[in-house]
Amino acid sequence: MAGNSFGTLFRFTTFGESHGPAIGCVVDGVPPLLELTESDIQNYLEKRKPGQSRFTTQRREPDQVKILSGVFEGKTTGTPIGLLIENVDQRSKDYGEIKNQFRPGHADYTYWEKYGTRDYRGGGRSSARETAMRVAAGAIARKVLGDDIKIRAALVKMGTKEINRANWDWAEVDNNPFFCPDAQAVPVFEEYLDGLRKDGSSVGAVIEVVCSGVPVGLGDPVYDKLDADLAKAMMTINAVKGVEIGNGFEAAELTGIENADEMRLGEDGKPVFGSNHAGGILGGISSGQDIVVRFAVKPTSSILTPRKSLDIYGKEVDVVTKGRHDPCVGIRGVPVGEAMAAITLADHLLRHRAQCEGWNTNKHFPS
Amino acid sequence: MAGNSFGTLFRFTTFGESHGPAIGCVVDGVPPLLELTESDIQNYLEKRKPGQSRFTTQRREPDQVKILSGVFEGKTTGTPIGLLIENVDQRSKDYGEIKNQFRPGHADYTYWEKYGTRDYRGGGRSSARETAMRVAAGAIARKVLGDDIKIRAALVKMGTKEINRANWDWAEVDNNPFFCPDAQAVPVFEEYLDGLRKDGSSVGAVIEVVCSGVPVGLGDPVYDKLDADLAKAMMTINAVKGVEIGNGFEAAELTGIENADEMRLGEDGKPVFGSNHAGGILGGISSGQDIVVRFAVKPTSSILTPRKSLDIYGKEVDVVTKGRHDPCVGIRGVPVGEAMAAITLADHLLRHRAQCEGWNTNKHFPS
Amino acid sequence: MAGNSFGTLFRFTTFGESHGPAIGCVVDGVPPLLELTESDIQNYLEKRKPGQSRFTTQRREPDQVKILSGVFEGKTTGTPIGLLIENVDQRSKDYGEIKNQFRPGHADYTYWEKYGTRDYRGGGRSSARETAMRVAAGAIARKVLGDDIKIRAALVKMGTKEINRANWDWAEVDNNPFFCPDAQAVPVFEEYLDGLRKDGSSVGAVIEVVCSGVPVGLGDPVYDKLDADLAKAMMTINAVKGVEIGNGFEAAELTGIENADEMRLGEDGKPVFGSNHAGGILGGISSGQDIVVRFAVKPTSSILTPRKSLDIYGKEVDVVTKGRHDPCVGIRGVPVGEAMAAITLADHLLRHRAQCEGWNTNKHFPS
Amino acid sequence: MAGNSFGTLFRFTTFGESHGPAIGCVVDGVPPLLELTESDIQNYLEKRKPGQSRFTTQRREPDQVKILSGVFEGKTTGTPIGLLIENVDQRSKDYGEIKNQFRPGHADYTYWEKYGTRDYRGGGRSSARETAMRVAAGAIARKVLGDDIKIRAALVKMGTKEINRANWDWAEVDNNPFFCPDAQAVPVFEEYLDGLRKDGSSVGAVIEVVCSGVPVGLGDPVYDKLDADLAKAMMTINAVKGVEIGNGFEAAELTGIENADEMRLGEDGKPVFGSNHAGGILGGISSGQDIVVRFAVKPTSSILTPRKSLDIYGKEVDVVTKGRHDPCVGIRGVPVGEAMAAITLADHLLRHRAQCEGWNTNKHFPS
Repeated sequence: MAGNSFGTLFRFTTFGESHGPAIGCVVDGVPPLLELTESDIQNYLEKRKPGQSRFTTQRREPDQVKILSGVFEGKTTGTPIGLLIENVDQRSKDYGEIKNQFRPGHADYTYWEKYGTRDYRGGGRSSARETAMRVAAGAIARKVLGDDIKIRAALVKMGTKEINRANWDWAEVDNNPFFCPDAQAVPVFEEYLDGLRKDGSSVGAVIEVVCSGVPVGLGDPVYDKLDADLAKAMMTINAVKGVEIGNGFEAAELTGIENADEMRLGEDGKPVFGSNHAGGILGGISSGQDIVVRFAVKPTSSILTPRKSLDIYGKEVDVVTKGRHDPCVGIRGVPVGEAMAAITLADHLLRHRAQCEGWNTNKHFPS
Repeated sequence: MAGNSFGTLFRFTTFGESHGPAIGCVVDGVPPLLELTESDIQNYLEKRKPGQSRFTTQRREPDQVKILSGVFEGKTTGTPIGLLIENVDQRSKDYGEIKNQFRPGHADYTYWEKYGTRDYRGGGRSSARETAMRVAAGAIARKVLGDDIKIRAALVKMGTKEINRANWDWAEVDNNPFFCPDAQAVPVFEEYLDGLRKDGSSVGAVIEVVCSGVPVGLGDPVYDKLDADLAKAMMTINAVKGVEIGNGFEAAELTGIENADEMRLGEDGKPVFGSNHAGGILGGISSGQDIVVRFAVKPTSSILTPRKSLDIYGKEVDVVTKGRHDPCVGIRGVPVGEAMAAITLADHLLRHRAQCEGWNTNKHFPS
Repeated sequence: MAGNSFGTLFRFTTFGESHGPAIGCVVDGVPPLLELTESDIQNYLEKRKPGQSRFTTQRREPDQVKILSGVFEGKTTGTPIGLLIENVDQRSKDYGEIKNQFRPGHADYTYWEKYGTRDYRGGGRSSARETAMRVAAGAIARKVLGDDIKIRAALVKMGTKEINRANWDWAEVDNNPFFCPDAQAVPVFEEYLDGLRKDGSSVGAVIEVVCSGVPVGLGDPVYDKLDADLAKAMMTINAVKGVEIGNGFEAAELTGIENADEMRLGEDGKPVFGSNHAGGILGGISSGQDIVVRFAVKPTSSILTPRKSLDIYGKEVDVVTKGRHDPCVGIRGVPVGEAMAAITLADHLLRHRAQCEGWNTNKHFPS
Repeated sequence: MAGNSFGTLFRFTTFGESHGPAIGCVVDGVPPLLELTESDIQNYLEKRKPGQSRFTTQRREPDQVKILSGVFEGKTTGTPIGLLIENVDQRSKDYGEIKNQFRPGHADYTYWEKYGTRDYRGGGRSSARETAMRVAAGAIARKVLGDDIKIRAALVKMGTKEINRANWDWAEVDNNPFFCPDAQAVPVFEEYLDGLRKDGSSVGAVIEVVCSGVPVGLGDPVYDKLDADLAKAMMTINAVKGVEIGNGFEAAELTGIENADEMRLGEDGKPVFGSNHAGGILGGISSGQDIVVRFAVKPTSSILTPRKSLDIYGKEVDVVTKGRHDPCVGIRGVPVGEAMAAITLADHLLRHRAQCEGWNTNKHFPS
């Protein structure tokens, strides 16, 4: 209830601060007999790891994950999986100056007011360092989903620069430091972000997550709709300020005639949709089409340019954040968005197994 | 877990179908000794009630709420509050034709696939009729929040027509059938929506909810952030496809320098913010500024214009939806959005009381 | 969180006071396409109904249940099932005298202190009248469990009088007003309870619930063990003060040699146990043997004999409870105990389906 | 949902197997600014630690706890507290022989059937080693409860030998290896248990937990009654088969006249009870009297005397358990019972703060 868990049947709980000895999590509800090794998880952590290009924070964390429980002889046992990553490159002295100051746009002020205390070092619990554990849990969620369900994300906009969707190539995403699917946009992003870094500023971004191969039927209306849970999942990621499913805000501009995703019968006897305005979710339940989620990340609030603020004594100050920060925290949000989508889907897959799958035997669509 | 409850400490659970005998809900966790009468609730139901203008469905439901429990001698007792509204104007025969058809863009197909059955009459459980119970629960949530916290919403965009924010007047909202805060936009909306109705079409909308007077400190990072719970709350409303907090998607275009909400000390010794890009939430916790949430509603999928689809036997059909439907379901989403915001805040107010309030006595900001 | 719900996947939430207009509940998580009618539920309510013999309260409630939602054309739809029973025979004036008094051993004092208010009429929310909704929800739980799982309970002890287990006959249980499985004990109970009624007193009882045909594997160690959830389930029933699984407290007196339920291979290739000290649960998981749960019910605290107490003003008073009360509230606890067991098992059946069933394919015990 | 968490607002989640690299837990919902050090926790772990006398397992585990998060400069921060204890004295080869065998009365068979796999080393997840984390979490729960609430437990019965309650002395409990409050019973227990150990057997026990200084008002009727949650808490402890509150099963033998805990006004203007049959809980809510909970522990199922059983291939075998085991696992259940009571009370204290405390201002009992 204190907010450090996510999911219901596939449920994970994280702990740890940016500059504490370690971060960790417990993943509960994982079915037994799934193959799982530390390297299965490590592969995804490598994507999120800091310090891999000049466009992310220069903190050097190996992010080496250890499985402490729940796996026996290479397979899950159905018991909780404890994961741990030690913090090795804290440089807490960087934070000495802002120890008592509230960075504008940062969680400093609200944590202080809520709890009456705060671990100021590296942002403490409010740091995006916590997202490493989401990526780790996401790797396990993918095991639950199986190979037929693919979850991929890409950065589609940085500040005022957008990709050209005609150039979209998933293979390109891992070839550049921005997780950008448009090779032609990469040099534009590079120049743009270099300029912002030199100015002591930062910038926002938009990430798009696409889930393919999701079966029809996941999601629990009316309050645990799949889109509602995905929206919550993305909004829990640090700095996210908006979420869209399918056409999102554009849908508000459409008429009912335009927005209808018409259906026909495919050659394989399964429904074929003429469009995907809905982003793969109808009435809160997956439709079998690609699930498309987009989220907006605000610019990093820790910047080198002085901003007016207060300190904990109520004194007016000018805040300059030194430390090591991502100039565009949205970039590393890409693997985190993927992980949160995987976790949300895995949770609903288990929920669907419990209540619906196999009970509704007199059904369905002819196939 | 089957998705018909919302909230944790202030928790409500709804039941009922559009054309069943009644809809109802249980509101649990309400503190004792709050004054509460049926008319406190009825006042808000009147705003959402169908059939009040030509721009909403012509179904005539008095939406008369009954309190069945949890209130004694005019005050809450701390026990669960049972609420019931009887359905009186069902016209299920309207649905005979589409009984076995899937309306494109509607929950028909996904409910059928998920559950292997479906109450087709008026959309059954997937109908927006369920939102009456949210409005009722929202009225109780407001009692928990007290009079100092104000929660108001308005329609700011319908299809391609937007209000002029310079004309924003909260008093105007209750003077027109659109909950529009810009008097000059009202005739534009009228003409626009009349045209769409005549064309047998429908249209989307954008709603903005503003919560004032919210104390600093509500929200539980990292997975129950206040913005994450608000995003989920709004996304559970029928037909919603996008949610934004503060600047939302626009924040992705800003630099860190622009996006910083700078702080100074006010004359009363409290912090004053120079802007509110964050929409009143930092690190998932309320900052004391106005909380600003926007959500996008897609056009009603039940329209008179034929759309291509399938029926439950896999036959290709042209679907025409007769029944009585809102040409812009976003309009009646205004009181529902308010209710969901009130419920989310009431829940976090109780959560904050449990874990933080009064424990952190060595604090705070000087005042 | 305010305590009016039970279960996780099969989850029900009740509301209503003893002398309010109605009591009701919402049962959520029920799989679709189960056959369900009001009379399926009514059959079980008849067993618990008051006023059926001189040994239960003389309040005349027909306890006629209405299904308000979640069932369509005789089958469940997977959406929440709303149930309502109107109260028709309240006699609130009976409670005028004790309106401001705390009955010793009753919830009067603690409700008053916790909530600062209390609906004194008939005990309000603390009345055992609430258990009617458990019996109703239990009838639905049985549908989820299917016909192969049998859940039966009996009264095995009343005050100092015990049944002779050698005479145990399930068929006898429905032939007497005590749900007693030993025909020879019935006249003893009759005489004993008549005496206590005449003395203006009441008495306690012990109920035993036996669940047969439960598959191996239900229960989620370590904190949602099947026995832990059954213990909680029984302890939520009004006036229950103790719960045992299998040998219960007697197990504390045994040695490990005696207590071992030895296993051999049956002729059908399935395990056969030589004894059932464990009561069908090992490590919190069902073993396939009969699940045996016993619970102790204290004597009704509302009695005609004066007892010393206080009123809400702190004045010392002698309390005499008129009203209409069960001289042995344990009797009507029999169908309630059955219902709570059915609900707990149904919940764990769904949980097992989600996490384990079908995943562990390389298994099991040879069969 | 997979069962490795306990509590709602004060919530902890454990992970780890008996012979894995470590066990750990996350304690969430702890209020900020409570003083907390590793030695605060260690003190309680010392009580439960194995190998401290010949009457507990000879496994040598230092049980050194590390706080990984949630504490800053000696005080809690309101963020989740991660705790870790490394396993150092595993001797997995002891289990080679029973690797594929089901110990009668043990979780071996049911884990195997439920999950289709099982970490057989030292019982894996089903081992009582997990209870170390409960004791650790319990130490934190005590901080939440404050010094005025005292939670103590004692062993009151071992096999057929009982203490003499007239000799009860809390100070004695820490002076003997049995946590026995009756000095005269200690030599009797010693001789008795030595005899059983030599016979290759084991024995059960009864533990009594007493909570003093608990304020009136904790507990959430009707499904989260304080006694129901305590019953569940105790029943989650390994090998527990019965739970009683106050008079427990004896209450079933009493009349309403006898069982009434009469009330008078004390000299300090507060209620004084004439007896405590109820064990400090009325209607599921604490009454301010001592809360008294008793639980029965069955004999350890891992014994040296051969018992008939099966192996995973369905072959009939004679099982002899070597390893290192507690001859009376109930002994070390004493600190675990205390911890579970502390955790349950801390949870309900927070729940009460959220919903009731401070809202019910027009109340209460005159004081």
